Amino acid sequence: MRLKHLIESLEQAHLDAYILFREPNIYYYTGTISGGMLIAAHGAEPLLLVPRLNLAIAQAQASGCQVKPYTRDGLLDEIEAALKPFSPKTIGFDDLPLDLHHKLQERLNGAELKASANLVWRMRRVKDSDEQELMRRAGELADIGMEAIREHLREGMREYQVAAEATYAMMRNGAEDLAFPTIVASGPRSAYPHAGVTDRRIRRGDFVTVDMGATYRAYRSDITRTFIIGEPTEEGARIYGAVLRANETVLREIKVGANAAELDGAARAVIEEAGYGKHFVHSLGHGVGLEVHEPPSLSRTSEDTLEAGNVVTDEPGIYIPGFGGVRIEDTVLVAASGPVRLTWFDKDLDAVCV
Amino acid sequence: MRLKHLIESLEQAHLDAYILFREPNIYYYTGTISGGMLIAAHGAEPLLLVPRLNLAIAQAQASGCQVKPYTRDGLLDEIEAALKPFSPKTIGFDDLPLDLHHKLQERLNGAELKASANLVWRMRRVKDSDEQELMRRAGELADIGMEAIREHLREGMREYQVAAEATYAMMRNGAEDLAFPTIVASGPRSAYPHAGVTDRRIRRGDFVTVDMGATYRAYRSDITRTFIIGEPTEEGARIYGAVLRANETVLREIKVGANAAELDGAARAVIEEAGYGKHFVHSLGHGVGLEVHEPPSLSRTSEDTLEAGNVVTDEPGIYIPGFGGVRIEDTVLVAASGPVRLTWFDKDLDAVCV
Repeated sequence: MRLKHLIESLEQAHLDAYILFREPNIYYYTGTISGGMLIAAHGAEPLLLVPRLNLAIAQAQASGCQVKPYTRDGLLDEIEAALKPFSPKTIGFDDLPLDLHHKLQERLNGAELKASANLVWRMRRVKDSDEQELMRRAGELADIGMEAIREHLREGMREYQVAAEATYAMMRNGAEDLAFPTIVASGPRSAYPHAGVTDRRIRRGDFVTVDMGATYRAYRSDITRTFIIGEPTEEGARIYGAVLRANETVLREIKVGANAAELDGAARAVIEEAGYGKHFVHSLGHGVGLEVHEPPSLSRTSEDTLEAGNVVTDEPGIYIPGFGGVRIEDTVLVAASGPVRLTWFDKDLDAVCV
Repeated sequence: MRLKHLIESLEQAHLDAYILFREPNIYYYTGTISGGMLIAAHGAEPLLLVPRLNLAIAQAQASGCQVKPYTRDGLLDEIEAALKPFSPKTIGFDDLPLDLHHKLQERLNGAELKASANLVWRMRRVKDSDEQELMRRAGELADIGMEAIREHLREGMREYQVAAEATYAMMRNGAEDLAFPTIVASGPRSAYPHAGVTDRRIRRGDFVTVDMGATYRAYRSDITRTFIIGEPTEEGARIYGAVLRANETVLREIKVGANAAELDGAARAVIEEAGYGKHFVHSLGHGVGLEVHEPPSLSRTSEDTLEAGNVVTDEPGIYIPGFGGVRIEDTVLVAASGPVRLTWFDKDLDAVCV
C-alpha cells in the first residue's frame, strides 16, 4: 500500500522510476530488514535486489515486491535490466553512496538521476496508527529505562554502569536494541551535548545528563533527563528551572499547524530571558521514527509546519563549559487533538535529585 | 602523529590536500568523538571544523589540529577558506555525502575531488599496540556477554531477553555500547545470517545463533556462537561439526602473509566437503576496529594479504532455509608471532548445548 502510494507520486514529481537504497526506507515500504535496493516504476511489480546472504529473510518478510539476489559484481547489471523496460529519462532516488551514484550514472545512457528523498519523507514523517502504537511502546520503554536509572544512580557509580542499568531495563522489557548510543554525561562532561559514555566516577553535586531511547519493532524513542546527585547549587537550580520552563512552554504548542522555527524560537526566548541564551547551542528538536533523526526539524532555520502524525522531540538545553549542563527532552506525537507525550518520566527538580 | 603520517602520504598520492569526513576517521586522527570535517595539507596545522554543539568536546579532546565551529550555512565557506592558501589542484577525501560532494565540487574552481579512502585504510587496518590492547579488552567483554547467555539461555525465553542478558553483562563490565545491533536468531530464524532480534520464544531443539560484540573505548569486537537447546539431531550435529571445522581450519592460518581469498577458500572447501557448500551464503570474514566492518576483507574476491596488526573475523556458516543455521565466529589479531584470538568462548558442541 505504501509502495503503491510512492509509485503514484512519481508522475507528479516528473520521475519515471525510483530507487530506494536506505535500509529504513526498504523496511518502511516492504517490511524487511534485509536492506538492498528497491526499484519501482508505474505498471510493474517493484523489484527488491538483495545481497545473497539476505535472500531468505527478504523472501520471508518483504511484501508488495519481487525479490531477487544480486552479487556485488552483478548489481549494476541487475539495476540496468530492471530499469530498461521503462526507458526512464529521470530516475529519482532516496540516497546513494557516491561511488554507486557515479557508476550508475555512467550506465544510464543519459538518463538523469535525481535526488528526491522528499517523496519518501513526505510519507514517513506522518506516522499512521500502527506506527503510533509502536512508538508509544518505544516511549514507554524509554521511561522504564529512566526509572531504572533513578533506582540505581548514586555517587561513585561509573557512567557506563548507569548506561548498563538503563539498557538492561529497556531490553529485558522488549526493546530489541537501543535507539542510538546512550549518552551519560556527568559533572563537567554534562557541558557536552554529545558526550558519549566514559568510565568517569559520578560525584556528589554532579549533573548527570542521560540521553537514550529504545528500539521497539524498528521504531525509536528519545528521552533526556538531567539528574542531580544530592542538592543543586543555586545556579544549578536556576539553570534547571530555565530548561524545564523552555521544555514545558514548547510542549503545549506542539500541535497541528505549529511553525517549527517558531517553536524553536519560543524555547530560545525562555532561555534567553533567564540569561543563558548563548549557552543553548543546538536546535530544539527533530522528528523521530524508524530513525532517531528524521524530518521535521525544529530549528531556527526550519521551514516545516507540524502535521498530524508527526513525532518530534522537545529538547532544550543549557551548557556552560567547565561547569556543566542540563537538557530535558521528551518525544511527542502531534495528534489532531493536540500534543501527546510518548515519554512521561518526571522532570520536576525534586524528581531528578537522587 | 597519525595526522602527520597522513599528511606525509599525500604527496606520493598526488594530492594537495585531504578532507576527512567520516566520524571514525576523525576519531582515529584527532581523538575526538565530535565528528565534523578535518582539512589537512602540507605546511599548515590541520583544521577541524565542528558543528557548534560539539565545539566544547572537540576543544577538550582533539589533538594535533586547530578547532573551529561552523554553522550549517557557513560550512562551504569555511572549507573554501581553509583550502585556499594551498591552491590545491587535487583534493583527496575519505567519503562525502552526495550533496556535499556536489556543492563542494562547484565551489572548488576546477580543482578535482578524489575519493581516496585507501590512504586512511592503509593506516587504520594496521592496529598499533595501544589499539591492540583496547581490542583485547573488547574481545574479553564479548566473551563475558556469551558467558551470560550460556548462564541464562533456556527454553521459553524470548530472543530479546537473550540479547538483554548479554548486553547487560558487557556494559556493566565496561562496554560503553554494543559493537552493532545484536542478532539472536532462534529456530527457523537461525537460517537467516542477519536476523535481528524478535520476541520469538525459544523452543527445545532450537538452534540459537547469537552474533554480538562490545565497544570499548571506541574499539569493537565481534563474536558468534550457535547454541542448541537440548540435544542436536544427527543432521544438526553434522552441520555444527562442519562449521566448527571450517572455523578452526582457518583460525590457524590467520597469519602474516596469508592470502585472504585463500582463507575464504579453505573454509569453503571444508563446508563443501561436508556437502553444504551452497548453504555457506556469505564471506568468511572482515576486518574489525573502530568499525565492525573494515578492511581487510576475507572473501572469494578479496585482493588483500594479511599484515601484522590486522584484526579480522573468522565466521563460516551454514544456513538451511526452513531448518536452521549455524555460524561460529571469532575475532583474531594477526600478530607477527601468529594468530592471536581475541574471543575465546568455548565452541565444542558440548559447550553450546544448554
